[in-house]
Amino acid sequence: MNGLMMDYPLTIDTVMRRAETFFGGKEIVTRMPDKSFHRYNYRACMARAKKLAVALQKLGIKPGDAVGTLCWNHYRHFEAYFAIPVFGAVLHTLNLRLHAEDLIYIANDADDKAVIVDESLLPLLETFRGHIGAKDFIVITSSGKAPAGMHDYETLLSQANEADFEYLAFDENTAAATCYTSGTTGKPKGVLYSHRSMVLHSLAASLGDVLDVREADCVLPVVPMFHANAWGLPYAAAMAGPKLVFPGPHLDAASLLEDFEQEGVTVTAGVPTIWLGLLQTLDKDPKKYNVSKLRKLVVGGSAVPKSMIQSFQERHGLSILQAWGMTELSPLGTIAGLPSDLAHASADEQYEYRAKQGRPAPLVEIRSRGDNGLVPWDGQSMGELEVRGPWIASAYFNRPDAADRFTDDGWFKTGDIVTIDAIGCVKIQDRSKDLVKSGGEWISSVDLENLLMGHPDIAEAAVIAVPHPRWDERPLACVVRKAGSTVTAADLKAYLEPLVAKFWIPDGFEFIDEVPKTSVGKFKKMELRERFANYTFNS
Amino acid sequence: MNGLMMDYPLTIDTVMRRAETFFGGKEIVTRMPDKSFHRYNYRACMARAKKLAVALQKLGIKPGDAVGTLCWNHYRHFEAYFAIPVFGAVLHTLNLRLHAEDLIYIANDADDKAVIVDESLLPLLETFRGHIGAKDFIVITSSGKAPAGMHDYETLLSQANEADFEYLAFDENTAAATCYTSGTTGKPKGVLYSHRSMVLHSLAASLGDVLDVREADCVLPVVPMFHANAWGLPYAAAMAGPKLVFPGPHLDAASLLEDFEQEGVTVTAGVPTIWLGLLQTLDKDPKKYNVSKLRKLVVGGSAVPKSMIQSFQERHGLSILQAWGMTELSPLGTIAGLPSDLAHASADEQYEYRAKQGRPAPLVEIRSRGDNGLVPWDGQSMGELEVRGPWIASAYFNRPDAADRFTDDGWFKTGDIVTIDAIGCVKIQDRSKDLVKSGGEWISSVDLENLLMGHPDIAEAAVIAVPHPRWDERPLACVVRKAGSTVTAADLKAYLEPLVAKFWIPDGFEFIDEVPKTSVGKFKKMELRERFANYTFNS
Repeated sequence: MNGLMMDYPLTIDTVMRRAETFFGGKEIVTRMPDKSFHRYNYRACMARAKKLAVALQKLGIKPGDAVGTLCWNHYRHFEAYFAIPVFGAVLHTLNLRLHAEDLIYIANDADDKAVIVDESLLPLLETFRGHIGAKDFIVITSSGKAPAGMHDYETLLSQANEADFEYLAFDENTAAATCYTSGTTGKPKGVLYSHRSMVLHSLAASLGDVLDVREADCVLPVVPMFHANAWGLPYAAAMAGPKLVFPGPHLDAASLLEDFEQEGVTVTAGVPTIWLGLLQTLDKDPKKYNVSKLRKLVVGGSAVPKSMIQSFQERHGLSILQAWGMTELSPLGTIAGLPSDLAHASADEQYEYRAKQGRPAPLVEIRSRGDNGLVPWDGQSMGELEVRGPWIASAYFNRPDAADRFTDDGWFKTGDIVTIDAIGCVKIQDRSKDLVKSGGEWISSVDLENLLMGHPDIAEAAVIAVPHPRWDERPLACVVRKAGSTVTAADLKAYLEPLVAKFWIPDGFEFIDEVPKTSVGKFKKMELRERFANYTFNS
Repeated sequence: MNGLMMDYPLTIDTVMRRAETFFGGKEIVTRMPDKSFHRYNYRACMARAKKLAVALQKLGIKPGDAVGTLCWNHYRHFEAYFAIPVFGAVLHTLNLRLHAEDLIYIANDADDKAVIVDESLLPLLETFRGHIGAKDFIVITSSGKAPAGMHDYETLLSQANEADFEYLAFDENTAAATCYTSGTTGKPKGVLYSHRSMVLHSLAASLGDVLDVREADCVLPVVPMFHANAWGLPYAAAMAGPKLVFPGPHLDAASLLEDFEQEGVTVTAGVPTIWLGLLQTLDKDPKKYNVSKLRKLVVGGSAVPKSMIQSFQERHGLSILQAWGMTELSPLGTIAGLPSDLAHASADEQYEYRAKQGRPAPLVEIRSRGDNGLVPWDGQSMGELEVRGPWIASAYFNRPDAADRFTDDGWFKTGDIVTIDAIGCVKIQDRSKDLVKSGGEWISSVDLENLLMGHPDIAEAAVIAVPHPRWDERPLACVVRKAGSTVTAADLKAYLEPLVAKFWIPDGFEFIDEVPKTSVGKFKKMELRERFANYTFNS
């Protein structure tokens, strides 16, 4: 027997109507390329989003068609977040940090029919425009003049009539957006979000124990809108109604601190490298900026060192909140808000907890699988994290070959090797492909790297698995010395001995000039593995 | 084109798993009938809920069957909230304040197969047990001994094996619970909630701008679990993981204040009369109870006087949050949290706002309809509030005759006459059936009543519409004088003159002994309308 409740689809138009209806007068601020500030409100924004929807349809974009965006975080990108899915088309956020080769592959795989692009990114567009199928290019210009053969964004809008817009009814499972993983191996893989997944993600992301977005807040997403939906903040904001501030292309610490102070930002989110730069700037002159309204700096994308959380808290009274997610998770998975059980724990215990990845958001379920099945939640046993939930991918777009990333019973294999403790708190130990499997035991390369990078003579360290005749695999440390250092392998072994189990100590140390990195600054260990594929340990 | 997201149904089992997995050690406290405190945790609770599910199935309860509960707010009622829907049966909360006649109608209409009942409510059960179809009666006893022919709750649980329980997969639209409206007119009407509506309602209810339930909270629902799902707090709590405190049958101010202080309650919810009693007790001896942890008293069920909000705030530093809902809305509709625009308004303006019904929760849409179609949101024009959203009834159970409560385009007609202002804030002016329609203009009987009850000589006042040959309808005030008062109709007319538009002043004043009331203390104006159906104004 079914309930007798309204069949009210969870679609993005409901979020859009909510923003214009109840938060119409609330402000949206953008730091423009010339560093000036553009200001308008949700009402004006949604009126323009409707015109953009009309304009796109006049260009021939149909429900189900993908429309790419190649943009920084700003108000017109935000308009596109609504204009494209609201008539059933698919918002495809292109990552402007990728190489042309990847962008060609991605734009063709998604079959983008049009691309909205920032004027400043036209040089990037030109590196791949001739190789993709898109016919229409809509340029966000400052002059009102787009290059020949392209459209000017504002001109298109001025020619569109808001009265031609109407809210449609469609199924909540309709595709709303797509984003490609920027994995370190293989071709990028497309994740296809639905209206339902976006709406549910927005609700959960706004919760007090998740990102905690309220009408009285002022939210500044540093995390790019081309990267995993800016962690869901654009839609969550439109649903909750906070003042919104977009940093444009100005992601340097000084610009962000100016934004925070001037606009009264309360909640912001970004990757650790951004906050590291911010910390250094604050440390240099702690009284220069008044950021007392900032109540939450959400950090994700890669693990946050405990020391960074501690430094922000103790030196500047700023609260870092770690979150873990993936493009495949829309992206929110877990969040490391302090459980009330630890409210009276020592400061060190609290920092220790907050440096973990935390517990899942509501509706996300987790489990961890080792070589012999599911592993216990003892905070010790390592396994690959598997997740399920309503905003998690069930498959990749056009990629039957990647079906092995999903279990037979419908969970997604994250590729992260974790421990889970008794209260369900996840700690990432490694990426599964980076794990060293030695004699049936697992060794965390990330742990070893963090310890090595704590050595005063070491600038960078990457630990990889190398095949070993007896132990299956053994760790090799690829180490970058600081300038002038002559630290030796023996020194480093002696350094590690009191810190880790004996079998964790790398069998080899190679001194290299630099650790290769991806476009988003993550270690590209694949290259090291190729380089040292035939490595033989001396011992 | 559909998205490629997991088909993860929004069902109550996911809430149950979340509570036992992540909040297993968090405490659930109940004030028992003998005023002692029972304590256990979510892990123990959900283990027992599973046993209850097994026990009910052993009794022959099948998916789709309704199981009634006739209980106060306590931990076993909370167990039933999960045990019944988790295997596809329907939780039917029976309102213990109804008359036997209504209970017979309701239990038969829902076709309850079994009833779980508090020992203290057996006398009530006996007034209708012989007239309903239910075969099994499960008594929550203190002795372990149920009356002949009935089951003892604990004995049933002790005979059930948790290992026989398994989580099933079912469609999220499956019916989960039912609750009957205790309307002032006609037969009670059944609202049939789905798993989906309950899960979505729980998510939205937990939001910072709605009820704001977090893991670190301590939640005490005063609002009965037999009344509109205790405003969604039981499921919201299991999803967020706060400490939970159930007051049992002890709803007097002193007991509640003891609970608040002793358990560190942070969030509570109930009807105005409860908080009025609390206010009087606090006023008598403001230092007797330490309720400094209480950060939110949610009030709903009927309108809260501005003076009460002000008194709590200014005399005791306690924050009243008004919410408006209906059984048909699961029940949350709107919430009167102060918009940030009013953060710097005068205290009086702020209280004025907080005495309104507020703006809708996410996913709830509102509009207001007058005699000539939708009315503008100007804070002045009155109309009947219509709502839609995923946790709003689309029909009543077995009641095709009540189809006129739903519009052709799928909105629910609330029966409340409201104004809506420019930012979407709702103020209830009247129930539609209580409105006085005079010469094409609408007069709010509620406003007149509140004004009259502000007169020092008046104990109670109810204003009803009486047919009028010229004006269609005119207001008649039915007034209860305070003991010893000799206030006259002329006095009251003179009193109202400076306060309302001239055409609002009642044409007649009748002095009566008492205003008739419903089981939950609302004015039963229907009786007055019958009594004065043939009333003729002197003028």
